Amino acid sequence: MRTRKLTVAYDGTAYAGWQRQRGPDTIQARLEAALEAIEGRGVTVHGAGRTDAGVHAVGQVASVALAHPIGDAALTRALNAALPADIRVRRVEAAPDGFHARYDALGKTYRYRIDRGPVADPLARRFAWHVPAPLDVDAMRVAAQALVGRHDFAAFQSASGAGSPVSTVRTIRALSIDAAPAPMLAVTVRGDGYLRHMVRAIVGTLVEVGRRRRAADGLAAVIASKRRGRAGPTAPAHGLCLVQVDYDDAPVAAADVPHGDGG
Amino acid sequence: MRTRKLTVAYDGTAYAGWQRQRGPDTIQARLEAALEAIEGRGVTVHGAGRTDAGVHAVGQVASVALAHPIGDAALTRALNAALPADIRVRRVEAAPDGFHARYDALGKTYRYRIDRGPVADPLARRFAWHVPAPLDVDAMRVAAQALVGRHDFAAFQSASGAGSPVSTVRTIRALSIDAAPAPMLAVTVRGDGYLRHMVRAIVGTLVEVGRRRRAADGLAAVIASKRRGRAGPTAPAHGLCLVQVDYDDAPVAAADVPHGDGG
Repeated sequence: MRTRKLTVAYDGTAYAGWQRQRGPDTIQARLEAALEAIEGRGVTVHGAGRTDAGVHAVGQVASVALAHPIGDAALTRALNAALPADIRVRRVEAAPDGFHARYDALGKTYRYRIDRGPVADPLARRFAWHVPAPLDVDAMRVAAQALVGRHDFAAFQSASGAGSPVSTVRTIRALSIDAAPAPMLAVTVRGDGYLRHMVRAIVGTLVEVGRRRRAADGLAAVIASKRRGRAGPTAPAHGLCLVQVDYDDAPVAAADVPHGDGG
Repeated sequence: MRTRKLTVAYDGTAYAGWQRQRGPDTIQARLEAALEAIEGRGVTVHGAGRTDAGVHAVGQVASVALAHPIGDAALTRALNAALPADIRVRRVEAAPDGFHARYDALGKTYRYRIDRGPVADPLARRFAWHVPAPLDVDAMRVAAQALVGRHDFAAFQSASGAGSPVSTVRTIRALSIDAAPAPMLAVTVRGDGYLRHMVRAIVGTLVEVGRRRRAADGLAAVIASKRRGRAGPTAPAHGLCLVQVDYDDAPVAAADVPHGDGG
């Protein structure tokens, strides 16, 4: 058995998210089916981020152990020949024995796109949340700084994740807001891990700041409250994209793993 | 009757092009149906560029004369409420009596996107032609310069347009090739008008240059030949987008109008 690291991109519009489910079509199920056709038996793929229904990826990472000796480049081609056009394996690499895409991830970068045009751009409609109201981007940037660092992000966790015994402390290493290309706005979050819907709740809250419905200096108090009701609404899934997953050269041990990591 | 100028964007994936046809769904038919619901009688919309099936637009311009006194902003909202999400009216403006989006156009800008990544980007798959081969972009830029200026572009006209008695002389004012954002390549053509499939034949020819299957200094001879067989293949429709249509402040007269203008 050799472990492979797959870097995967997908348009999540047609899928019920990453994770295999009974019934609905998912990215994991498609990848496993394509791999099983090569391997000749059941395989399990582990994804770094369990992206929700409608969320996209350009740099999702998945790990899988295969007995089949197929080379990495040939495996890339074979998978892309079998997968639908909205899921692509960007590359396959050899990984150390025991490499696990989720447990070994040191950090992940998500990007959320907002279309600020007065009329939605039909070419971006699957990949950006249309917010036609004026947004005070400077105020959003000020507000975002309170989120950077190690915090208990319970106030930004979806209701379905609340009550979990697992720690809700996470570290956001960087949060940038780029106003380009006009009229798009991109919120890029780099962190060690995420609670369920955390990035989307952050974006929903920052948009309230941008619309001047919430003070730019109020986010420290929202974090301190640990109450979901104090943060803004969860922004829609289709604006979100998993951009990158970071690993050490030597994969880290499977300790201190955040759960419910769907961005 | 007041004449209006509509600026229209669309994802052309689901449509049989701009022009109204019996049967297939088209952009013009959708716009006319939405306008007729407001006007209460049949209306005809004139589009600046008769884009082909699968071609997109961010800056298509259409003209229409309406008796209904609805304001421009209200008309924009009413049309977008009636139209499907893949067609958006970006704005409606008052236009001088007799304004005709096609006859009065002084120039049009088309952009063709090429995805040069080794694996197609699934998020761009509807809007970019995937060419995984290495492309010599400098050679493509050299070759493109032969196309700029006033030429007989018969060699770049689709077979279905050939034999037409209309002039095949057109002027390309600018042709730029931008290698950003990586791995995308954008070929932007600004001209006074286009023969049928002309931009796509230009792109297909430039890609042959980029792949070193054709000399970078050979395009003047292709133009001089006036033979379609000397140019490269027609690039696929889905990479093409009508970006902008230029007008004078005072619309020009309906003289010297190029026909078969589908980019």
